[in-house]
Amino acid sequence: MSDKILIVGAGAIGGFYGGLLAKAGAKVSVVCRSDYNIVKQRGYRIDSCDLGQWQFEPEQVLQRAGDYRQDADYLILCTKVTDQIDRIGLIRDAVRPHTAIVFIQNGVEIEAQLQDAFPDNELVSGLAFVCCNRLQAGEIRHLAYGKLMLGNLPGGVSAKTRHLQQLFIRSGIECPINEDIIAGRWQKCVWNAPFNPLSVLSGGLPTLAILQQQEQLIRRIMQEVCDIAAGCGHPLTDDVIETNIQNTYAMPPYKTSMLLDFERGHPMETEAILGNAVRAAHRQGVACPRLETLYSLMKLRALQIQNQSQ
Amino acid sequence: MSDKILIVGAGAIGGFYGGLLAKAGAKVSVVCRSDYNIVKQRGYRIDSCDLGQWQFEPEQVLQRAGDYRQDADYLILCTKVTDQIDRIGLIRDAVRPHTAIVFIQNGVEIEAQLQDAFPDNELVSGLAFVCCNRLQAGEIRHLAYGKLMLGNLPGGVSAKTRHLQQLFIRSGIECPINEDIIAGRWQKCVWNAPFNPLSVLSGGLPTLAILQQQEQLIRRIMQEVCDIAAGCGHPLTDDVIETNIQNTYAMPPYKTSMLLDFERGHPMETEAILGNAVRAAHRQGVACPRLETLYSLMKLRALQIQNQSQ
Repeated sequence: MSDKILIVGAGAIGGFYGGLLAKAGAKVSVVCRSDYNIVKQRGYRIDSCDLGQWQFEPEQVLQRAGDYRQDADYLILCTKVTDQIDRIGLIRDAVRPHTAIVFIQNGVEIEAQLQDAFPDNELVSGLAFVCCNRLQAGEIRHLAYGKLMLGNLPGGVSAKTRHLQQLFIRSGIECPINEDIIAGRWQKCVWNAPFNPLSVLSGGLPTLAILQQQEQLIRRIMQEVCDIAAGCGHPLTDDVIETNIQNTYAMPPYKTSMLLDFERGHPMETEAILGNAVRAAHRQGVACPRLETLYSLMKLRALQIQNQSQ
Repeated sequence: MSDKILIVGAGAIGGFYGGLLAKAGAKVSVVCRSDYNIVKQRGYRIDSCDLGQWQFEPEQVLQRAGDYRQDADYLILCTKVTDQIDRIGLIRDAVRPHTAIVFIQNGVEIEAQLQDAFPDNELVSGLAFVCCNRLQAGEIRHLAYGKLMLGNLPGGVSAKTRHLQQLFIRSGIECPINEDIIAGRWQKCVWNAPFNPLSVLSGGLPTLAILQQQEQLIRRIMQEVCDIAAGCGHPLTDDVIETNIQNTYAMPPYKTSMLLDFERGHPMETEAILGNAVRAAHRQGVACPRLETLYSLMKLRALQIQNQSQ
């Protein structure tokens, strides 16, 4: 019997991973809001850099989770993590007792809210290393990478997560398991914490230009993230900074997700990426003056955007 | 006999203080470049918030210092301090053996260049606490404050500086002497170092909004400046942070000079205000992670401006 999967927040990331799961044989439905009419009519056209082009026709296209009348095996939450989005309210009406809740989202320490709301459900944390754009409603372009890292909360890996991994691998992407996925989130934050805010605060520089001019600052910010992760009991490996630096030099110049949100006038994931890291540092008594400064600057930038729009 | 004074860089600040000295009876000439034609024809119209309106007709209006054929008693340099401006080259041809060089400019540790170039001249450091705008060529509006603080380098006060002080006082403004004017510069930097870059990096917020949202960050940046000043042998008084915070709450919302330069597409005084402070910290082994972060961000912002204009 096919797996029943509901994707909530089926934009570029949700549509791409949903489309892969459908290719692998799952029954994939989607909840999407802004693009509902077009997706309902035509599904998704996905154009991948290395997995070909395909049409993804969801089983059901819905406007809200409550309209999904089946028992989802997996509910995959792919929205941004911002104050404007009620993650619990968006999914609550589709969560059944045996539904595994998978969240493929940015940020650190974003688990507690879901753990508190669904204490009896299996919870799977997902980290996407992918570059996907929504060209227009129902059109997704996969530009680079694709790896999805999965792991159960609070740790380890379940049979159900292994099964989901197999679906993703069958669809053609890398899908490693990380039994300390919380450390995995901190590891991703090592890159996100400097490059996302610096891309916005610099006025829109791509990653390579930022790195070329400010490698020392970036290394120091990365070290602060490593210090916080260690303070939280999730020490990262010694080579994590060097690897991130070298990988970024090897990447094509890249606009960060925060910069894209900024340019589109969308809310930015400042709290999920920077605010939560700074709060964790304060809780654990770890110094992070550079992260604090970036966090404050991003809040000032947001205030200015808000003032301008009034 | 009237004092012969040459103002170099006679924009808003230079025109205002030059106009005051002329009111006090000095023979004031000016070197101005972009506004030369208009000023040559019509002089300056100065409209002050508390000193009335007056017409300032310079003795001579010149395009370069070398055209000044007299022996200046005082040469007052009022340009911005940026990489684009050759401060020495701008004044060299008008400096005579007995000329006192007065620089009314922003920044810390901007003295050495002048001391090295003119080791035998009296050097007077000036700090302007004034809000002046150039409305258009030859039109200056004095909006608030006006105080000019003077002191000799490397310290103390000369008879010639006292005489200049008397001219300014006669013209109606406050003109205190600071016998440790280097500490005075650090004290001004306590305000400039947070508010100037934060106003630019926030996307244009006025000072009050920045302070209301980020008072703690601002206090910490101010503390870093105090630490550097102390490390350089110029400890500031204990109340300097509190006084700056309270004064800024009491000020009308204000656009910093760096923000005005940024909005006009002019070079910003990043090196004079932030770069020199950070370099002094490194030299003295004082930690300043927040200042370093702001300095790096301002350089990234400048790189982005440069990329955009290419």
